[in-house]
Amino acid sequence: MNLILTLRILGALLLCLGGTLLLPVPFSLFYHDGVWSAFVISALICFSCGGLLFGFCKSSKDLSVREGFAVVTFGWTVFALFGALPYLLSGAIPSPLDAFFETMSGFTTTGSTILTEIEALPKSLLFWRALTHWLGGMGIIVLSLAILPMLGVGGMQLFKAEVPGPTADRLRPRIQDTAKLLWGVYLLLTAAEALLLMIGGMSFFDALCHSFATLATGGFSTRNTSIAAYNSGYIDAVITVFMILAGINFTLHFQLLRGKLREFHRNEELRCYLGLIVAATAVIVGFNWYYATYSQLGENIRYSVFQVASIITTTGFGTANYETWPVLPQYILILLMFIGGCAGSTGGGIKVARILLLFKHAQVQVFRLIHPRAIRLVKLGNRPVDKEVLQSILGFFALFIGTFVFASLLMAASGMDLVSGGAAVIACLANIGPGLGTVGPIDNFAHIPAFGKSVLIVCMLMGRLELFTVLVLFFPSFWHK
Amino acid sequence: MNLILTLRILGALLLCLGGTLLLPVPFSLFYHDGVWSAFVISALICFSCGGLLFGFCKSSKDLSVREGFAVVTFGWTVFALFGALPYLLSGAIPSPLDAFFETMSGFTTTGSTILTEIEALPKSLLFWRALTHWLGGMGIIVLSLAILPMLGVGGMQLFKAEVPGPTADRLRPRIQDTAKLLWGVYLLLTAAEALLLMIGGMSFFDALCHSFATLATGGFSTRNTSIAAYNSGYIDAVITVFMILAGINFTLHFQLLRGKLREFHRNEELRCYLGLIVAATAVIVGFNWYYATYSQLGENIRYSVFQVASIITTTGFGTANYETWPVLPQYILILLMFIGGCAGSTGGGIKVARILLLFKHAQVQVFRLIHPRAIRLVKLGNRPVDKEVLQSILGFFALFIGTFVFASLLMAASGMDLVSGGAAVIACLANIGPGLGTVGPIDNFAHIPAFGKSVLIVCMLMGRLELFTVLVLFFPSFWHK
Repeated sequence: MNLILTLRILGALLLCLGGTLLLPVPFSLFYHDGVWSAFVISALICFSCGGLLFGFCKSSKDLSVREGFAVVTFGWTVFALFGALPYLLSGAIPSPLDAFFETMSGFTTTGSTILTEIEALPKSLLFWRALTHWLGGMGIIVLSLAILPMLGVGGMQLFKAEVPGPTADRLRPRIQDTAKLLWGVYLLLTAAEALLLMIGGMSFFDALCHSFATLATGGFSTRNTSIAAYNSGYIDAVITVFMILAGINFTLHFQLLRGKLREFHRNEELRCYLGLIVAATAVIVGFNWYYATYSQLGENIRYSVFQVASIITTTGFGTANYETWPVLPQYILILLMFIGGCAGSTGGGIKVARILLLFKHAQVQVFRLIHPRAIRLVKLGNRPVDKEVLQSILGFFALFIGTFVFASLLMAASGMDLVSGGAAVIACLANIGPGLGTVGPIDNFAHIPAFGKSVLIVCMLMGRLELFTVLVLFFPSFWHK
Repeated sequence: MNLILTLRILGALLLCLGGTLLLPVPFSLFYHDGVWSAFVISALICFSCGGLLFGFCKSSKDLSVREGFAVVTFGWTVFALFGALPYLLSGAIPSPLDAFFETMSGFTTTGSTILTEIEALPKSLLFWRALTHWLGGMGIIVLSLAILPMLGVGGMQLFKAEVPGPTADRLRPRIQDTAKLLWGVYLLLTAAEALLLMIGGMSFFDALCHSFATLATGGFSTRNTSIAAYNSGYIDAVITVFMILAGINFTLHFQLLRGKLREFHRNEELRCYLGLIVAATAVIVGFNWYYATYSQLGENIRYSVFQVASIITTTGFGTANYETWPVLPQYILILLMFIGGCAGSTGGGIKVARILLLFKHAQVQVFRLIHPRAIRLVKLGNRPVDKEVLQSILGFFALFIGTFVFASLLMAASGMDLVSGGAAVIACLANIGPGLGTVGPIDNFAHIPAFGKSVLIVCMLMGRLELFTVLVLFFPSFWHK
């Protein structure tokens, strides 16, 4: 591990963060919310710390795999730490742990909040809150399509962005190329959603914040009651569509923009993802109809598809309290929480492709019992999946379940009831936002004791960085030469 | 698939079942409970059906792998179907589905009951109920240590009984040798427990029934309040010890009896299993002490260790209502439900060895990220585990979770609440007995609608036969030539 190089890059990242911390200042001045100085001071702190790190830690070496892990894990942590400064300095969130929780929830695009009164927050802080999502989303796209595949984490090799450009073995040039192209798509989709929301009557400010939170599958809203506050079928529809888009592999969006419809159409993970959304919605609409949750079918479909899209993409926006739904719809939503979006999207969770491969692996295992001498490979989209990659995916699944179980154990130890504790963990581990019970869609995370919040912060980080990235740091041999 | 041969073997099994159905008759006559004729008629039905199948289906071929799967799955089902006759014919359980549920719960050594008033049952039926456990346990020992390893199911190859005798490639001779030796151990332990329970003041009848249910890790009691009815620290202790023994690989007991202490001591799964029991008990005692669940430490330890042993071994006897315990102890018990006993024991669940290997696999996956070129194998007890076996175990884990999720979904669809529905499924899938919520330790399964009971019956069978054995039958290619 080259610590000097890692620190140098973290310094550079802090300088970038400092720059973004100045973006809310115009909003603060425009809305006269009086907290512009909090942003300026935060930015200055970032610039100084970042400058010191970048200046003093000189290294001519190029980034290798180990530093990759360290930069990603510490990078996200440093962003969440320094990004919490405006909340603290403005006094909007007095508790450092709460501020850290809120910022980690932002940068990991989780959307779990410790705020009980969101609309009371100064406008520029609301903007910063949404911006942490959007920046986090940018990070995730590059992480999942360029960095993690190179590091070989959890089978992400399968989803390496096939973006034109020089193929170098060293990490940096490749990452930069991929980033530029995919961020273009990300920006485009964000702008499109904001425009469509404004056409639906949303203010520029709200449209921007909600678009940030949608494309990043974050879920922070500027309103106490989330999207339900607008009570508009059009706005619900626009956000539903863009949540679903944000849950798709961004390489596919890029291919689509280049006119490669076929790739988009043939992608097995995508078809499975869309199939899951349709099936889940159909069953939930059916049960809500049978139990007469809604008086009208249109209402039923509108609310059902929105919550399904919000949960499977791990966005976490809400227009209905699904805890009042029958048991099966709730159970389906819990399952979708674990599944999550497509690999290479901004969505969290286990990812559709992994679930698909897991299912196929189990199928092959049963097949082998009948035909012990037959050779049958697990395939994804007609391509056989490398055994090492498959083992990595199986390991990821076991680790995800293990992490969920262990964290839930800690929540139970803190005295939270079984359902709420487990729901809080999966809501954070899969980067969704709301859970069930005391952390349901109309509740928040404020009441959780400090120990529980700390556990959940770690869950958000681990889930967002595909577990392995964080776990390697705990292996002593990682730190050896 | 040689259907004729399969039917012939099922016929032979039915003849055996007919014989065992006569065993409760002396009890019926002794206690004058007036249901002896129900057993005689049931036996005659078994003899006729069995005789017809065995006589008409002639096949000179030897058993191959495919017939092995069919015989095991259909054998257990046929036993549960015909074994339900005495309940029906005596009128003790009027509903055929309920009688089938109770018998399947017996033969799969689950212990979930649909009876609300156990003590009202005629004595000979209580004996039959316990006997189904004991016979099921005999089946499981042979299944897990001789049959499944040969069929290559779920990594059970690792736990093949290394019993002296001729090593033949054909299934039959090997199975017979293994069976004889291990059943000797099983019988010995049952007799020892019965004797110790009688020393503690239990009647011969109760001692016998409870020993049957303990060694099979079944859990059917002759009393409404299970073992709590005796309110004796000595009886609790005896049953605790024998539950723990029943959760250990029976090959190890065999080795121990032959004086091979070393094998017993060195076994990694065993150490992990005992470690889990000690750790779980310690934490639960600690929490029960902190929350003052019991006034005395002795009481606390006695009830905590009993419930831990009862759940991890998947026996399901009860001396305390763990639903009144703090959240963490309950959560730990839920985890133990999934883990289950050792492979090659009569216990159900995923099995300690599989969990251990899963954990080691995940560890190796993380290690590989740091040292991509290093070769590090997953080992169990210093022996490297074959990759195919490991894949099979990973597949089993995914399938177990998948089956749990799917069955819980069906329970949710039937309207059961999330916790009770999920608990009912794991209680049956891991062959435990009691769950949580409406199927908790002081409740029963009577109130579940017919659809839910049917789902649970399938869960009991699938869990008991290590999933794969049942699933292969659903592959069309299984039935082709």
